[in-house]
Amino acid sequence: MSPQTFLEDFHHVANIGSTPHHGVDRQAATPDDQRARDWFTAFAKERGWTIRVDGIGNLFALITLRPGAPFIIVGSHLDSQPLGGRFDGAYGVIAALHAAERVERRARETGERPEFNLAVVDWFNEEGGRFAPSIMGSSVFAGIKDREEMLAVRDLAGTRVAEALDSIGYLGPDEGPEAAGYAEIHIEQGRILERESLTIGAVDSSWYTQKLDIEVNGEQSHTGATAMADRRDALLAAAKIISMVHDVTLGFPAEELVSSVGQLTVEPNSPIVVARHAHLVADLRSNSREIVHQARDTLRRQIAELAEAARLDISVRDFDIRENQYYPESGVELTLDIATELGIGARRMQTMAGHDSVAMNRIVPSVMIFIPSEGGVSHCEREFTSDADMLAGLEVLSEVVHRLVHGALAPSLLPGAQGRA
Amino acid sequence: MSPQTFLEDFHHVANIGSTPHHGVDRQAATPDDQRARDWFTAFAKERGWTIRVDGIGNLFALITLRPGAPFIIVGSHLDSQPLGGRFDGAYGVIAALHAAERVERRARETGERPEFNLAVVDWFNEEGGRFAPSIMGSSVFAGIKDREEMLAVRDLAGTRVAEALDSIGYLGPDEGPEAAGYAEIHIEQGRILERESLTIGAVDSSWYTQKLDIEVNGEQSHTGATAMADRRDALLAAAKIISMVHDVTLGFPAEELVSSVGQLTVEPNSPIVVARHAHLVADLRSNSREIVHQARDTLRRQIAELAEAARLDISVRDFDIRENQYYPESGVELTLDIATELGIGARRMQTMAGHDSVAMNRIVPSVMIFIPSEGGVSHCEREFTSDADMLAGLEVLSEVVHRLVHGALAPSLLPGAQGRA
Repeated sequence: MSPQTFLEDFHHVANIGSTPHHGVDRQAATPDDQRARDWFTAFAKERGWTIRVDGIGNLFALITLRPGAPFIIVGSHLDSQPLGGRFDGAYGVIAALHAAERVERRARETGERPEFNLAVVDWFNEEGGRFAPSIMGSSVFAGIKDREEMLAVRDLAGTRVAEALDSIGYLGPDEGPEAAGYAEIHIEQGRILERESLTIGAVDSSWYTQKLDIEVNGEQSHTGATAMADRRDALLAAAKIISMVHDVTLGFPAEELVSSVGQLTVEPNSPIVVARHAHLVADLRSNSREIVHQARDTLRRQIAELAEAARLDISVRDFDIRENQYYPESGVELTLDIATELGIGARRMQTMAGHDSVAMNRIVPSVMIFIPSEGGVSHCEREFTSDADMLAGLEVLSEVVHRLVHGALAPSLLPGAQGRA
Repeated sequence: MSPQTFLEDFHHVANIGSTPHHGVDRQAATPDDQRARDWFTAFAKERGWTIRVDGIGNLFALITLRPGAPFIIVGSHLDSQPLGGRFDGAYGVIAALHAAERVERRARETGERPEFNLAVVDWFNEEGGRFAPSIMGSSVFAGIKDREEMLAVRDLAGTRVAEALDSIGYLGPDEGPEAAGYAEIHIEQGRILERESLTIGAVDSSWYTQKLDIEVNGEQSHTGATAMADRRDALLAAAKIISMVHDVTLGFPAEELVSSVGQLTVEPNSPIVVARHAHLVADLRSNSREIVHQARDTLRRQIAELAEAARLDISVRDFDIRENQYYPESGVELTLDIATELGIGARRMQTMAGHDSVAMNRIVPSVMIFIPSEGGVSHCEREFTSDADMLAGLEVLSEVVHRLVHGALAPSLLPGAQGRA
């Protein structure tokens, strides 16, 4: 299949749920997500591949290369953030479909006998913008999250995951394929490759991350009649906490800790009422577990002091803790070797962000590959990666998948065989 | 009519839209607002009064005392804040109905011939929690706001005022009565009467108030992949502005300026996305126009500096500016005299909060009376005023309305006749 065909497919999918400024708004289990999935399904069926949809909406296309063997799975996600970019996730799925087609054709043409079968996947709800938590489908597949619990998660309109999936026809009856390995390609969402003029990142580990769920309970009162000294203002306290969450990063070397608050709800949220309640979610990330723990402890102490001083009831709960994950060294080297063979500039790197591969790496050897994203911009309409970088990534992924179905990483599953590939 | 009957009526209305902690949630033009209005209508019809509903949903009960003469209007509002208190507004309407009944009976029994007719009013949407701005119905009646513009205002669900009023059957075809004067009784929503153990406040003026509508435009990006230095975080800036709006009060003597932000919306409001947009409304109030202007200028300068430093686009718009209003001195003295005659402790005072009487005072001489509210608490379920204070207020209001229909304030309308009453 030609590079031109890949680019046509990519731009076709980018038009599903497209937004005025070249982004996409294709949140999980919406009609636009359905249309993207229907396109995936049609792509697979045209090639005679078998479609399977599991009970959390993960969509698989199975390609038999060695009847009865387990599967190398390759893919990413077609859902997006609200007003998100057209590359995040979708690039990885479309590249996976095209890489799989190449690997299948090569196997047929050469008569080689691969070790494993091959499956392409569109994981359900990687983004978590509509239904929290993120990385939902792959986490259920990997056994890290409970399927029934995830099916009961509701969006802000009260719709459950199960209902939403059913309404788009993707709450499936199938088991997923038995996995032997996993590969994913994704935009970097950072500036390292761009800064070093490199095209491929071989991801060796993920950052330690955690969130804090913070509830502030004050007292509702009239802005036009309540003395300043008598107020117990939940929104003012939330504002101070948002500043604290930012300022805690200043206690560490630049960029070693990143933090943010992206979500805040206020009740009753009326212009002339002092707010009685605020709910916010803080996000802390570092390569160092120790730094995240220090920042968390500092914030908990500062928030307790604020609650005392402002006569508020503030609860802080740790959640969504993700330990550092290390991808198999053999897979990192495989990616770097292939890039070198193809004459493509590459380096090893980390990911600050979570990905489906972080979940999959818990159960099978997984390979994570990055390509550049201009300005490091992501989760917005301005996200951009050049056609040339996308095609270079497709070349590398195709070769990685070819070697994986031929058993490149399988020995690392056996004790004492680490790093042989 | 006995005090007991008044209390029964008050507690009956408090059960319409009641909340678990003794408050009410009876927002404008909701089914519970309709039920409260239906109760008002039934009360009036049982007494042979004439019901009129005007084109912005103001509900009037007309009592003819002198055919062809204009009307003294007395009332307040039956709508509430979301999770509001049961006294704010409703007390004034129910006290007005009972006062009107007393005044009418007294006129019939004594054969006196009043100067004016009498009307009781439930103004539409005083609170402004569902449809902004507040004080909507009386402002349209007073010609300060445009009716068509107000009918087109939408709530957060997109419903227009006109549709909402029509759906509860209170978008009326009538003209309101011709006004000659206005009286209103309301809970203080502050602590002055409580602190001084007084029962009646004769309101002589209202504070200068204004709002600032603030839009922050940043850039949406991924919390887990965007370096701190590269972020343009709209929510972090909004949090800093909320703190500025609070801290600006510290530059003035305590309680001479009160400020708050009660409303904030964030987009896209996702836990793992740096917000691209935040919208907030700041509220500034002081007796001194000069203090509000100084505070506003300081905030505008600080916000411009923040926009520059954080590479954000922040717009600030002045709106809802309300000049100090002075109630006629003759009405203040009337209230104080009547309280003295009845042996009820009283003082003159100001109102920080806006009221329907502030709008009415623009077109006719208006009398505004306060009774205590425990702890100064208001716009929340905990709002409380004792039965004894409510009944004392009813006594004072009844006598004030009696004298108004007999022309107590009319001379003040004539040049050179100020303060004669």
